[in-house]
Amino acid sequence: MEKQIITISREFGSGGRLIGTRLAEKMGLPYYDKNLLDQIAKENGYSVEMMEEDEMRARNSFLYSLTNAFGTGGYGAETQSINEKFFMAQFDYITKLAENGEGGVIIGRCADYVLRNFPQVTNVFIYADEESKIKRATESYDVKGANLRKTLASVDKARANYYKYHTGKKWGEPENYHLCINSAGLEIEDLVDLIITYVEKRVAAANK
Amino acid sequence: MEKQIITISREFGSGGRLIGTRLAEKMGLPYYDKNLLDQIAKENGYSVEMMEEDEMRARNSFLYSLTNAFGTGGYGAETQSINEKFFMAQFDYITKLAENGEGGVIIGRCADYVLRNFPQVTNVFIYADEESKIKRATESYDVKGANLRKTLASVDKARANYYKYHTGKKWGEPENYHLCINSAGLEIEDLVDLIITYVEKRVAAANK
Repeated sequence: MEKQIITISREFGSGGRLIGTRLAEKMGLPYYDKNLLDQIAKENGYSVEMMEEDEMRARNSFLYSLTNAFGTGGYGAETQSINEKFFMAQFDYITKLAENGEGGVIIGRCADYVLRNFPQVTNVFIYADEESKIKRATESYDVKGANLRKTLASVDKARANYYKYHTGKKWGEPENYHLCINSAGLEIEDLVDLIITYVEKRVAAANK
Repeated sequence: MEKQIITISREFGSGGRLIGTRLAEKMGLPYYDKNLLDQIAKENGYSVEMMEEDEMRARNSFLYSLTNAFGTGGYGAETQSINEKFFMAQFDYITKLAENGEGGVIIGRCADYVLRNFPQVTNVFIYADEESKIKRATESYDVKGANLRKTLASVDKARANYYKYHTGKKWGEPENYHLCINSAGLEIEDLVDLIITYVEKRVAAANK
């Protein structure tokens, strides 16, 4: 079958990153997340540190949130210009992957939206209830303490803002994805197998 | 394993009803939708026609929408009282099923919300893009014509209103479900198998 691309969007602590790496391994596909940022940064003459700093600043800024509330504008002309360039560079890179028929597992980066018209792309959203996310985050990242609940909410808020800003759509809304899985109480391996089953059935139905 | 209950919430035309009947068949479980309404109506001395009429009127009324916009109140004291009785009767019936350890596939009726604290319950939401839903609705229900697009939207609007009114939550929001599946381009049989796989993995993980 044609090489598949699976995009994973995920709530913090839902196990999405682990699912992504294991899925890539099991399907024999390259895995893209921060590595993607690195490559694009190098290609475009940015330093990774500069990009990350700028993005985090933009994500968390008041103006960034304001943008989402009113649906237009930017988060300061200068910041916008750097961020837009980043996004466009990533957009192009991801699009080229799909155009060239290459497969991959891509985490975040609005890849579901960027690739929404390519038939070989399956978009997955991983989420869970707060208690499960706290449990998984504590086990996986060794993050602890009273602030974890706050961190969970703020990371997801930043992801939703980033998504809204670049796509005009609501992050985590089923219509943007093929499959949304609540990962609570399930093993990573089970979740990976479920995604593979969905992709295989989808490909088989399309080739009928 | 303990008898499972699977609730199916679905957009009109997404194949949810067919998935529900086939799922019940394959898992050897009773299937509840309008039948459920019938049973409760009989038990409570209502005629089915009276209930259905009343519910449709309430669902589509301006006041019903208003309730959702402001989050409180009812859609006219008299209508509310009949509807509330219906809902409570169904609520009780569904709850008793779960308490008695009986299994089943339940379509709609806010069953996901009613049974949210029972561990043997898996809540599934089935949706699809508009074109796929129109295609499926045309094939399955022999509904045709220019009004189909409008019907699709209005049925789902009524379902969302009904859900919001009784649960205070947003219909189709992933957090209310364990699994949300975009049914576009997939066979009913594949979708049924995917749900069974999820349920089995969930049960196995819980019993580990």
